This record gives sequence, structure tokens and C-alpha cells, in this order.
Amino acid sequence: MARVLTGIQSSGRPHLGNILGAIVPAIELINQNQEESFIFIADFHSLTSSKDGELRKQNTLAVAAAWLAFGLDIQRTTFYRQSHIPEVTELTWYLNCFTPFPMLANAHSFKDKSARLADVNAGLFTYPVLMAADILLYSANLVPVGKDQLQHLEMTRDIATTFNRIVDEEILVVPEARISEEVMIIPGTDGQKMSKSYNNYIDIFLPEKELKKNVNSIITDSTPLEEPKDPDTCHVFKLYSLLASQEQTKQMRANYLGGNYGYGHAKKEFMELIMSKYSKEREAFNYFMTHPDEIEKRLYAGEEKAKSVAYELLDRVRRKLGFR
Amino acid sequence: MARVLTGIQSSGRPHLGNILGAIVPAIELINQNQEESFIFIADFHSLTSSKDGELRKQNTLAVAAAWLAFGLDIQRTTFYRQSHIPEVTELTWYLNCFTPFPMLANAHSFKDKSARLADVNAGLFTYPVLMAADILLYSANLVPVGKDQLQHLEMTRDIATTFNRIVDEEILVVPEARISEEVMIIPGTDGQKMSKSYNNYIDIFLPEKELKKNVNSIITDSTPLEEPKDPDTCHVFKLYSLLASQEQTKQMRANYLGGNYGYGHAKKEFMELIMSKYSKEREAFNYFMTHPDEIEKRLYAGEEKAKSVAYELLDRVRRKLGFR
Repeated sequence: MARVLTGIQSSGRPHLGNILGAIVPAIELINQNQEESFIFIADFHSLTSSKDGELRKQNTLAVAAAWLAFGLDIQRTTFYRQSHIPEVTELTWYLNCFTPFPMLANAHSFKDKSARLADVNAGLFTYPVLMAADILLYSANLVPVGKDQLQHLEMTRDIATTFNRIVDEEILVVPEARISEEVMIIPGTDGQKMSKSYNNYIDIFLPEKELKKNVNSIITDSTPLEEPKDPDTCHVFKLYSLLASQEQTKQMRANYLGGNYGYGHAKKEFMELIMSKYSKEREAFNYFMTHPDEIEKRLYAGEEKAKSVAYELLDRVRRKLGFR
Repeated sequence: MARVLTGIQSSGRPHLGNILGAIVPAIELINQNQEESFIFIADFHSLTSSKDGELRKQNTLAVAAAWLAFGLDIQRTTFYRQSHIPEVTELTWYLNCFTPFPMLANAHSFKDKSARLADVNAGLFTYPVLMAADILLYSANLVPVGKDQLQHLEMTRDIATTFNRIVDEEILVVPEARISEEVMIIPGTDGQKMSKSYNNYIDIFLPEKELKKNVNSIITDSTPLEEPKDPDTCHVFKLYSLLASQEQTKQMRANYLGGNYGYGHAKKEFMELIMSKYSKEREAFNYFMTHPDEIEKRLYAGEEKAKSVAYELLDRVRRKLGFR
């Protein structure tokens, strides 16, 4: 049975773009497929950019809470925090010694980041090796990646192949990429792609009052209330239609075209739709965030499973390299 | 009480140069001083250059056996293998994220090695961060270093200082260098510095017959037996005088100057001196090498001690960075 492994960023509370673009499709895929699934929160990776420990802890919990709230089945999925199987850093050291320096120096993402960021640290540089260890430690066969991560997966394959060749044994599973189908681009409150870094996101887990403010911040044009409006250029309509049924969408389209229907009305309907559609998830998320021990309990189960898989591989590597 | 930490290479069976230049002085220092001493075999580091697991395992045992044979007091010293406290790689990841990329790229030793070696791997590049973790994980105050390692210790100090500043707490002890007094240069069989890489070393742990061959390989000039010889330009005399008493050295000098004394005679005396002076150490070394469980037992004690020190520091770092 193929083992599919997915790492998720722990950079903050998942917003609507993360939910519609990543969490919901991933959970659907897991529920449909017969594959074995490993999903981990990549909190070690987040240290390359953020040094704030309290924030990282909160973010990690929030990411876990969101996945659990959206119904991730932890019986079918091994769900864990990267940092709770720290043995991945040991494998990273081994793999570092099998990774040509120029391969890392020439990586697109490093060149890009080192040109953009003020804090160009060695973690950023060796990040692709940690990513390789994340995958190889669990002998994953399949890794869903976007196009931007394809080079990193190629590196993982190169590193694994080189390692196996040098130690003359097929210890590491060389993973295949599963190129994600065109990921749905979710527009933000300003019409650009919804993103934490653009600060244009809808946070469906906010308390009602703040969520209302958040929805009201969606940018609209100044067409007067009475006049007909173009649904196809309106961010509110676009966002609404992503959550709404066909029937609901059709109705709002008619309202836009009919006139005497303001953006305020549309925002109100969008707000109501979020509240009704995600009432269960909002409640679950809040429950988890106020009961972190319940998150811990669920992660613990996954982490025990992940450890046993990791230890087995690590033991083989240690013996092969003469460390045991 | 100051904690002194020393890493020793695991690149092979220690030769006479290692013994006289490093092992004996270190053990004397430990026995004289009241400092707390940590000595570890840097087997993780050896992976940057050698991928041969069987050889590494043998080398690591041989290094341990040599230190034990020369009387390292494991009651007074925490003696351990780097790889048996693999948590050092976890700290390495954290420190990587606090280490500016250019600091590593500009390190002398990396520039030098990357110009010389065919296998320029990422392990070689991040090696100074692993070295920093080796030191900082055990909160060492003092690190004896040769001049060639001084830059790496400066990096360790920089990394620790940066880390403490960013997390706003003095978690890592900033170590001081103890510049080794001019290390005794032990000449090899060809008069150059004795070194594994020059293949000019005397291996005092060889079986008698092979040791004899080894001693006979010392290069001498072709002065005929009858003629007087210059002790001060002769490699045999130099090596002999390093082991001999003043009285013995004086006698051999007289023999050289008197004539009718061949290099063969000198080699024979040198051979006999090794056999008598190191008979206990040779026996102990052979005992350990044929009883690896006895080495394991002694390392185990040190590794348990090292772990408890390491875990305490690592726990503080993990909490501070939001991983626990």
C-alpha cells in the first residue's frame, strides 16, 4: 500500500484559503483513498523564519485544531508534529554528508529567499535536506507537491539515490511526486490570492463580532445601492460562491444583476453562510483551542505511530553507517 | 567548577603522534586538574569524509581502546561517543537557524576543504554548527583548541551569543578557548610531522612482528656502519629520545657519535623501548579490542552521564523555542 506523506506549515491559524485550498481537499482524498497517510505539522521548518517560541506553540496548536475540527480521521492518518520525532534531525545530519554542497547552493528557493530576506541563516540553506529527511525517515512513496516544491522533491530523490548507491543497499525509499492538480486559488479580501503575508485573509475561526469586521473588510467598488452590480468582478460574490450551493449562488447573482441590492447585503449573506456552514467546525476549533490537552492526546497517538516507523528506518541507517 | 570539553577524531587507530601529542598530555591534565572533564569521540564528524560504516565502527572502538589503555580515568571524565547522544543533531538544527549563512561560507576551513576535496558535501559546510552544538549542549566553559580550530570556536561563541540575545535569556554558556600550548610535533618515519595522511606513522599497537617492520621503515641515510653518525638529523634518534629516559638518550647519542653503531642497532633499541615502555598499554589495548563489550560498558557509563546533562539543556531550548 502506498504511503502518502504531506507536511503542513505551522505559520499560523489556517484561514479560508488554507481550508478550501488544502485542508478540505486533503481530508476528502484521505477519506476516498485506500492509501496510508502521514500528515505532519512542520514546526521545525518554521524556525528558519520565526524565532518566537510562544507564537510557534500557539500556531502549531491552531493548525492541529483546524485539521481536527475539519474532521481529519486520525484512525486513518498518522498525524504528528515534526518536532516530536526529533530523530529527523539525526537523519538530516547523515543526509547532509551525502548532499553535494552545490546542489543546495543552486536551489531556486534558496537563491530566491537569500535575495529577499534579511535573515539568511544556515537553516534556510539546509532546509531541503531536512525536507528530504522528513520524507525518507517515513519511507514515503508519494509526496503531493505543488510546482514550487518540485525541485525540493527532486533533491530528495537525488539524495536517497546517492545514499543507497554509496552504502550499496536500498535502505531509503525513493519517493515519487504527486503533482497537485491546479490548486484552487482563493481570492482574498482585496481580490489577490488569499495569503497571510498579504494580510487579506478571512479567518473563519474568529469570534462572531470580529468575523463580521473581517468580512466587512472585503473591498468593493462604489456602485450605488440601487444600481445593478457585476457579480463576476466582485470579491464578495466570488468568496460567497466558493461556499454556497449552486442554488444560493444563482440567487445572489440575480440579486446583483437586479439592483437595489448593496454590497452590505451580500457581505451579510456571506457572513451568515460562514456561520451556518462552519458552525460545527468553529465550535470544534474553539473546543480544541480551549482544551489543548485534547489536541495533545490526538497528536500523541500519531506521534507514537510515527516514532515506531522512524526508529526502524533510523536503526538501519545507524547500523549501516557504523554508529551502532 | 569549570567544565572542559574535548572532541577527539575517530579517524583511525591512534598512532604514536596522537599518543604523545594528545592522549598522554590530556590524561595528565585531567589527573592534575580539578576541572570537570568531558571527552567525546567525534564519530558524527567523520561522516563528512568517510562513508565506510564498518571502518568507522572499528576506528571508534580503537580510539576508545587507546584512551582507556593509556589510563583515562572514567570516574573523573565523562567519556562518550558523539553519536550516542544524537540529540546533538537536534540542537544543530536549532543553531543552524541562528547561524548566518555567510559566516559558514566564509569559514577558512570550508574554503580550504572545498578547494581540496572532491566530495564537498553539505555536512562539511555545516560542520562548524555541529561543533558548536557539541560544545553548547554540554554547557562547556573551556575548550582546548589548536590555532586551526580557533575560528570554529569563535563561531560557537557568536552563535551562542546571538541565540541568547534573540531569545532574550542566557540559556547557552558562551565558552572560552584554551589555546593549546605549542603542541609537540612528533616526527614520522620520514621526518615530516607524523600523520595518518602521510602514511609515516608508528603504530605501537601492532603485533610484534609488524611493529618491527613498521620501525624498520624509518628512513635513514646511507652512512656506513663503522662511521660516526649525526643523532640530530636522524629520525630514529629523534623518535627514540621522545620515549627514552635522559640516560638512555645520552647513551644512544654517544653510540651515534662513536661509530661502529648502525641504524639497525638504533632501530632495534627503539623497538625494544616501545615494547617495554608500552607493554601494559599494548596488552590493555589488545584486551579491549578483543572484548568490545568491555569498551561498551565503560562508554555506557559516560553516555548516561552525558545524556542527563544534554537533556536538561535541550529541554530548556525546546521550551524556549516553542517545541514543547
